[in-house]
Amino acid sequence: MTHGRDHEVAEEAGRRLEAVRASRPKIHCLTNFVAQTLSANVLLAVGAVPSMTMDAQVAGDFVRSSDGLLVNLGQLDPWRREAIPLAVDAARGSGKPWVLDPVKVQRAGARAETARQLIGEDPAVVRCNADEREILQVPQSIVLAVTGEVDSVSLAGRQQRIANGSALMDRVTAMGCALSALITSFVAADDGDPFAAAVAAILVFDIAGEMAEARARGPGSFQIELLDALYALKPADITERARLS
Amino acid sequence: MTHGRDHEVAEEAGRRLEAVRASRPKIHCLTNFVAQTLSANVLLAVGAVPSMTMDAQVAGDFVRSSDGLLVNLGQLDPWRREAIPLAVDAARGSGKPWVLDPVKVQRAGARAETARQLIGEDPAVVRCNADEREILQVPQSIVLAVTGEVDSVSLAGRQQRIANGSALMDRVTAMGCALSALITSFVAADDGDPFAAAVAAILVFDIAGEMAEARARGPGSFQIELLDALYALKPADITERARLS
Amino acid sequence: MTHGRDHEVAEEAGRRLEAVRASRPKIHCLTNFVAQTLSANVLLAVGAVPSMTMDAQVAGDFVRSSDGLLVNLGQLDPWRREAIPLAVDAARGSGKPWVLDPVKVQRAGARAETARQLIGEDPAVVRCNADEREILQVPQSIVLAVTGEVDSVSLAGRQQRIANGSALMDRVTAMGCALSALITSFVAADDGDPFAAAVAAILVFDIAGEMAEARARGPGSFQIELLDALYALKPADITERARLS
Repeated sequence: MTHGRDHEVAEEAGRRLEAVRASRPKIHCLTNFVAQTLSANVLLAVGAVPSMTMDAQVAGDFVRSSDGLLVNLGQLDPWRREAIPLAVDAARGSGKPWVLDPVKVQRAGARAETARQLIGEDPAVVRCNADEREILQVPQSIVLAVTGEVDSVSLAGRQQRIANGSALMDRVTAMGCALSALITSFVAADDGDPFAAAVAAILVFDIAGEMAEARARGPGSFQIELLDALYALKPADITERARLS
Repeated sequence: MTHGRDHEVAEEAGRRLEAVRASRPKIHCLTNFVAQTLSANVLLAVGAVPSMTMDAQVAGDFVRSSDGLLVNLGQLDPWRREAIPLAVDAARGSGKPWVLDPVKVQRAGARAETARQLIGEDPAVVRCNADEREILQVPQSIVLAVTGEVDSVSLAGRQQRIANGSALMDRVTAMGCALSALITSFVAADDGDPFAAAVAAILVFDIAGEMAEARARGPGSFQIELLDALYALKPADITERARLS
Repeated sequence: MTHGRDHEVAEEAGRRLEAVRASRPKIHCLTNFVAQTLSANVLLAVGAVPSMTMDAQVAGDFVRSSDGLLVNLGQLDPWRREAIPLAVDAARGSGKPWVLDPVKVQRAGARAETARQLIGEDPAVVRCNADEREILQVPQSIVLAVTGEVDSVSLAGRQQRIANGSALMDRVTAMGCALSALITSFVAADDGDPFAAAVAAILVFDIAGEMAEARARGPGSFQIELLDALYALKPADITERARLS
């Protein structure tokens, strides 16, 4: 059970989860093929409404009729290379927040360069892992969420560390990508505090992961249990289980 | 338990399910990336044999060696924009029925225009939801299946309403797309009555969904249970559970 | 329980499984969209680390920083047509083994031609089914794994037949593709005997499939159980269950 300021953070995460469920934000995802289905199902499990079109011809239309945009660089392909700038322009032009997930930038120079340019386009949040973070420079004015065994969310002088989660997350593909989609939905349903939105989304995802692990027999059942846990998660689960610092 | 004419419709649906299982129709799907895996698994669960190649270079070959074609406009991309007319021509030229799923045409003008052109190419069935249906004009000579809380199948003077299904279907991505694939397999195994084939496929899918919901704890387990239920569904489950009007 | 030479083959398969788990080989997959998620999850379940980028711009970078390459021709698309020769060159140039899966070459002439050219590029293993094998000529110097009700692995004078597996494998899409990915991970973790690596991977996959079938109620739960079984499989399960000839 959480206490003091940690309890407040956990309570706020619960309120934000309920706000996503109530407002059902439309999230447009420009994400990799491996991540698309799981990300859509994670969004649907909390009541958000995903769209996934990566075609440049309609990406702007979809972004303008959505509440938030995710740009994920995994399996970056020619379509998304063309659609991403149009989608980011549409998001910025229509005042929709957008989130960047710079997948595996350490594995290919061209992709790292794309990520660096996009960081200059004012994403609300950058979510990555430690390997990816190492080769990127993220301005203090952008919420930076680095996830791993312990997750860290930082913005200017603020930092929140979250020690929840499950080791089985590393044994299911595209879990980090799906978390980025979930963060986008929390930011899109937000009142203007993407730092708190990112903290809430990570807490929700990690705690659902812990509850899933308790029921799972391996990585197959884990991903099924995770979707069920996200769907059923109660604010009290968060205040009871959050491990913050 | 069904009675009278409803009982006959339910019995016919059971016979059509058994015919798909026995004849194992080959279904070529030009469908979106998010829907491909689930659609393939839904088809395999009833014994149909899916192929999913979207490459224009071989789409004609695949359609001509299949028994039916699904064209789904979700995430419509340059490859499918090129392959769809070739595939539809191959289907029409070789006398194979084809089914159109005009996903999210209300979200982008260009996609609605594509859908309107395709409706002129004599699909056996158009399956969509109410939002999509609103902006499309479907001739009376085409079977129109509009699915939602209550599903409706219509053709010229015929109409069938189906009240089965599960609310969890809206919490799993690409369920409507997978239903369109299933309809295609029933139409492909058919004796020339795509209206009755569409009714049968929807009944089968909806009743499998109800049986899945009874075992599921959330949207994750629901989709797994749905595949198991489709695989195990007995004609008697349909006659017992069908809610028709 | 296995005896004699069969027991030795089964024991070696168990040692090779443990070697994959310990060395965590990075496997780059150029595979079809339907297969990508399941293949990644199968690799992760045994501790291998998948990447799936199909973009020609970075495919070489990814292959050079990996331990093995899978080339799968399912849904062969323009990106992979461009990336495959670059990836194969990168693999050969950096001494990484690569595996070919010539999916559905019997359904389209252009794809069969691509497969024939690739067989000349010195893959360590070709894995296919009987229909695909019929129209391909594979040199004696390449390990040929033909899977079906009974699987056969052959190389020059050596042959191993494996009678394990589950009929439910045919009711889940991309199971053969996922097996090819698993074979690649065993070959990549190998000491230079791709024949034994392929035999081991097939034994592991088939026996996990049998254990999954024992718990599954249909094809939905089967694929979940398969991932759990791969994750938990013990060398003793292999020596107890292997059916070799």
